[in-house]
Amino acid sequence: MLLLLLQSLLNTKQQRVSMTFPKYVDLIESYLQYSLQHTSMPASLIEPFTYIMAPGGKRIRPVLCLLAAEAVGGQPEQAVSAGAAVEILHNFTLVHDDIMDRSPMRRGNPTVHTKWDDSTAILTGDVMMAYAYRMLISSLPTQHLYSVLQSFTKGFVEVCEGQALDIEFHHRKTVSLDEYIEMIEKKTARLLELSVVVGATLGGGTDTQIELLRAFAQNIGIAFQIQDDILDLTADVQELGKTIGQDIVEGKKTYLIIRATELVTKESHKKLLQEFWDNNGVPANRVNEMRLLMEELGVLNDARAKAQHYFSKAHQDIQQLPPSNARNLLFDVIEMLNVRKK
Amino acid sequence: MLLLLLQSLLNTKQQRVSMTFPKYVDLIESYLQYSLQHTSMPASLIEPFTYIMAPGGKRIRPVLCLLAAEAVGGQPEQAVSAGAAVEILHNFTLVHDDIMDRSPMRRGNPTVHTKWDDSTAILTGDVMMAYAYRMLISSLPTQHLYSVLQSFTKGFVEVCEGQALDIEFHHRKTVSLDEYIEMIEKKTARLLELSVVVGATLGGGTDTQIELLRAFAQNIGIAFQIQDDILDLTADVQELGKTIGQDIVEGKKTYLIIRATELVTKESHKKLLQEFWDNNGVPANRVNEMRLLMEELGVLNDARAKAQHYFSKAHQDIQQLPPSNARNLLFDVIEMLNVRKK
Repeated sequence: MLLLLLQSLLNTKQQRVSMTFPKYVDLIESYLQYSLQHTSMPASLIEPFTYIMAPGGKRIRPVLCLLAAEAVGGQPEQAVSAGAAVEILHNFTLVHDDIMDRSPMRRGNPTVHTKWDDSTAILTGDVMMAYAYRMLISSLPTQHLYSVLQSFTKGFVEVCEGQALDIEFHHRKTVSLDEYIEMIEKKTARLLELSVVVGATLGGGTDTQIELLRAFAQNIGIAFQIQDDILDLTADVQELGKTIGQDIVEGKKTYLIIRATELVTKESHKKLLQEFWDNNGVPANRVNEMRLLMEELGVLNDARAKAQHYFSKAHQDIQQLPPSNARNLLFDVIEMLNVRKK
Repeated sequence: MLLLLLQSLLNTKQQRVSMTFPKYVDLIESYLQYSLQHTSMPASLIEPFTYIMAPGGKRIRPVLCLLAAEAVGGQPEQAVSAGAAVEILHNFTLVHDDIMDRSPMRRGNPTVHTKWDDSTAILTGDVMMAYAYRMLISSLPTQHLYSVLQSFTKGFVEVCEGQALDIEFHHRKTVSLDEYIEMIEKKTARLLELSVVVGATLGGGTDTQIELLRAFAQNIGIAFQIQDDILDLTADVQELGKTIGQDIVEGKKTYLIIRATELVTKESHKKLLQEFWDNNGVPANRVNEMRLLMEELGVLNDARAKAQHYFSKAHQDIQQLPPSNARNLLFDVIEMLNVRKK
C-alpha cells in the first residue's frame, strides 16, 4: 500500500517535472533551430550536425543553464546562447565518443559515423566546436565574454581528459574508486557544472551563488553516472534501449565492478572478477552470474546509497539559494534524475 | 650561364631566409615547449600532442603572425601566444585530416593514428583545440580578446569547411576552377590569413594594414597550394618525402587536373582524363602518361604562371606597408615559398 502510494506520488512528480520544462526546452530548440537554418556550411557538414542536434532529447544541460540564470535573479533568455553552445559541446562529445567506442546506435538512431562514415563524424564534431565558439563570441555581452569563454574552454579541455581517462581505464588491470570518481567528474559532471556556472554568470549571480550551483551540478553529475552504472544491470531492456549488462561485457570499469572488487571475499566471486579484469569483460552469458555476485556483495545497494548521497548533497547546495520558482525547478531536476528508469 | 647565376642568387636568398627566421621560430618553440611541459593533461593525450607539435617544421604560420605584429609597428612578443595557438590549430587539422585521408606518414614520421590509433588521434585533435582556446583566453589582453577570438574561430570554422569541400570533391565527377579556388582558400589560405590578422591586431595595426596583410596571406595561400599540386608531379622524390603523382593515383581534384580537363582536345587525352574522373584516380603505372599529358597541354606552365600571379599580388600587398625589417622578411617569406622544392 505504502509502495503504491509512493509510486503514485513519484508519477505525479514526474508528470509535474515534464510539465514544467517545455518553456526552457522551447527557448533552446528555437534558438538552435534558427541558428542552424541560417548557416552557410557545406551540406556534408550541416546535415549530420542537424541530425545529431535534432529535438527530442532532455536538453538537461541547457535547461540547467537557463534555470541557473533565473535562480540567481536573471532572465533565462540571457543564457540561451550559452545553453545552446553547451548542448553543442555535449553532442560533439557524443559524436566523437561514438566513433571511439564503435557504438552503432544512439537514442534509438544510427550514430553519425554509422549513418555517414568516420571522416564525416570526425569533421562534424570539429565543426560543431567551431560553431559553438562562434555562437558564444557573437552573442555574449562584453562584460561576460572572458569569464564564460574561460568556463566553456575549461569544460572542453576536461571533457576530453575525462574521455582519455575512460579509454585509459579500459586497458588497466586495476582502477581505484578515487580514480573512477575523478574520471566521471571530468567526463560527466564538468559539462553540468559548466552549464550552471555560465548560466549563473550571465544571470548576474554572486560568486557564492555560482559556487553553490557548481557544487550542485557536480553532485548530480556523479550521482547520475553511478545511476547509469546501476541501470546498465537493472533497467528494463525496453526502457534502456540496449542490452542489459553491456558494460560488463565491454569491460567498462564501473562503480559496481570497482566496488565489488574491493568487497569480494568468496573464491568463486574472486575468480569471476579476476576474469573480468584479465579479459576486459566477461561473455554475455555470464552477465547474470555477475549480477548475482553484485547482489550478494550488496554492491547494487551500496551504489544506490552512494547515488542518494550525492543527490542529497546536491539538494543541500540548492537549499542555500534564495527561494524562487527556478530553485523549485532545480529541486525537480534532482527528483527527475533520481527516479529515472533509463 | 644566366640560369646558373639565378640559381646561385636563389641559393643565397634561401640561405639568408633560413638565417633570419630562427629568432621568431625560437620565440614560438620556447613558448610551446614551456606551455606543453606545464600541463596536467593525462599522459595518453600529452604524448601524441607533444609528438605532433615537435620542433623541426617551418612554423610558417606563427612566424607570419610575429612578423605581422612587427610589420605594423608592434613587438613580436605581443603575438607569441596567438601564433602558438594558430600553430596548434594547424597541427590539429593535420592530425584529424590524416585519419580521414588514411595517411600513414607525415614529415617522414608515422602519423598520430598510425603510431597510436584512431581514437587517440581523434581525442588528441580535440584536446589540441581546447588547449589552443585556453592558451588564447589566458594570455590575450582584454582589449583584443573579442577580435582575436573571433578571427581564430572564423579560421577554425572555415578550415573544417575547406576539408569538407575537399572530401566532397573526392566524390564528384566535375569540379570547376572557381570551386577549387574556394576550397583551397578555406583549407589553406584561411589559416595564413588568420595568422597575420591576429598578429597585426595584437601589434596594434590599422584596419588598412590588417587588410593588406590579410590579402597578402590569402594570395600566398593560394599560390602555395597550386605549387603543392605542381610539386606532387615534379618534385624530387627524396625531397618531397613521398611518391610522385600520389594526387593523381588518389583522385585528388588538383589545379592541374581541373585545368587539364578544361584545355583537353586530343581523344587519347580525353580518355585518360575521363578515366581519372570516373574511377577517382588512375593506377600508379599511368602517372607518367598523365604527366606527359599535362606537359603537352601546357598545364604545368600554366599552373606555374598562376602561382606566380598570386605571389606577385602578395608582393604588391606588402609593398604598401611602411618599410621595415619585418616587411623585408615578409618579402623573404614570399621568396622562400616561391623557390621551395618540397
